[in-house]
Amino acid sequence: MLADTRIPGVRALFFDVFGTLVDFRTSVAREAERLLNPGGYRLDWLAFADAWRGEYQPTLEEVRAGRQPYVKLDVLHRINLERILPRFGLPALPEETMRELNLAWHRLDAWPEVPAAMARLKKKFLLAPLSNGNIALMVDLARRNNLPWDTILGADIARDFKPKPGVYLSACEALDLAPTQCMLVAAHSNDLAAAAALGLRTAHVARPNEHGPGKGERAPNLPVDVAGADLNDVADKLGA
Amino acid sequence: MLADTRIPGVRALFFDVFGTLVDFRTSVAREAERLLNPGGYRLDWLAFADAWRGEYQPTLEEVRAGRQPYVKLDVLHRINLERILPRFGLPALPEETMRELNLAWHRLDAWPEVPAAMARLKKKFLLAPLSNGNIALMVDLARRNNLPWDTILGADIARDFKPKPGVYLSACEALDLAPTQCMLVAAHSNDLAAAAALGLRTAHVARPNEHGPGKGERAPNLPVDVAGADLNDVADKLGA
Repeated sequence: MLADTRIPGVRALFFDVFGTLVDFRTSVAREAERLLNPGGYRLDWLAFADAWRGEYQPTLEEVRAGRQPYVKLDVLHRINLERILPRFGLPALPEETMRELNLAWHRLDAWPEVPAAMARLKKKFLLAPLSNGNIALMVDLARRNNLPWDTILGADIARDFKPKPGVYLSACEALDLAPTQCMLVAAHSNDLAAAAALGLRTAHVARPNEHGPGKGERAPNLPVDVAGADLNDVADKLGA
Repeated sequence: MLADTRIPGVRALFFDVFGTLVDFRTSVAREAERLLNPGGYRLDWLAFADAWRGEYQPTLEEVRAGRQPYVKLDVLHRINLERILPRFGLPALPEETMRELNLAWHRLDAWPEVPAAMARLKKKFLLAPLSNGNIALMVDLARRNNLPWDTILGADIARDFKPKPGVYLSACEALDLAPTQCMLVAAHSNDLAAAAALGLRTAHVARPNEHGPGKGERAPNLPVDVAGADLNDVADKLGA
């Protein structure tokens, strides 16, 4: 049913999500402002989003290194939220506010071209997120942004976080595909390097403004099979 | 985004697949005839499908009872296929034929009303299969029959088979929902009974011809929240 591509043999595209498909920075800033502004809080909302995301890799590393058991990213986001609140002079907030604020990560908006590009890619490839986000979070982002996943793979399936090899390999295995039949699409060279080391094909998407204007990868720092200025460009180059 | 239903609080519908959504019996018979007829084999193809499916529960029970480690249903289907071939006077077949024949289970057709009913239900509920089939098998059935899953849950996530409680509970947990926010849709009373015992809501779909004319459940043998003559009837009763 699914035709071959210009990269022979690729049957499935796996996607990094945070930064690659969705603009987490401005979305988290918007959600934080929406939920905290009515309480009279005035923050630098983008700095708040940056600080929250800044805790991401160190917290995940505790799990990757085996010092903490696997828990869903939602749980780690909550821990990191509690960690950064004092830095912004925020008091302990009501539980309902904390819960809603933590769900900011379920309400991220896709970069503008993503929904249409995904609809094109769906006709030619199996599509699944290969994200550190948990299944419920991925489902909410998919419903919000029309991401037409065939299934959700990634951290919750592997019970570990990228770039640990088992996360990529469990995704290939779930679809009964060899790594060479799978391509990771990501805006981050380190993610693509980990995938390539296991035999997956790679596609880089430029997101030059991921962490603010000019603060994102304009190009990969390693050889990749495809590099695109955005996801439509990747789709063009894959013949989708 | 997803509105409440006539059953208050239900956010997600989980589906049994074999028998409930797809007609495995006539589909497996068709695939077996397509693949074996050119080799000159003449069987009672429906009896062949029945025999293959007949090995299903005993084989799964080895895993459920802990006597065998979890393996994908594809692997168990292959074991069962090798077990039944001699009964039909079939010799050892070429590996390519065996592999293709085993993929008969990836090429099952939905009961006629299913795709349209699923499209209706998608507007109101999160949808996921809660099947003993593995992810790759579920993905292929979804592509073939336009089953608009939000994600694929079930055996491959729980690494066990229904009706073990962990399979149902892992599905609720993956979506961050309480069992009472989830409803199992199935044509089999024993599946619904296992789900209900854990707090899930239940919907029965009549499939009176699942195992041949008149050989299927026309009605549930336990109290359920909804009982429908087909999936459109269930959708009607859920206000979808």
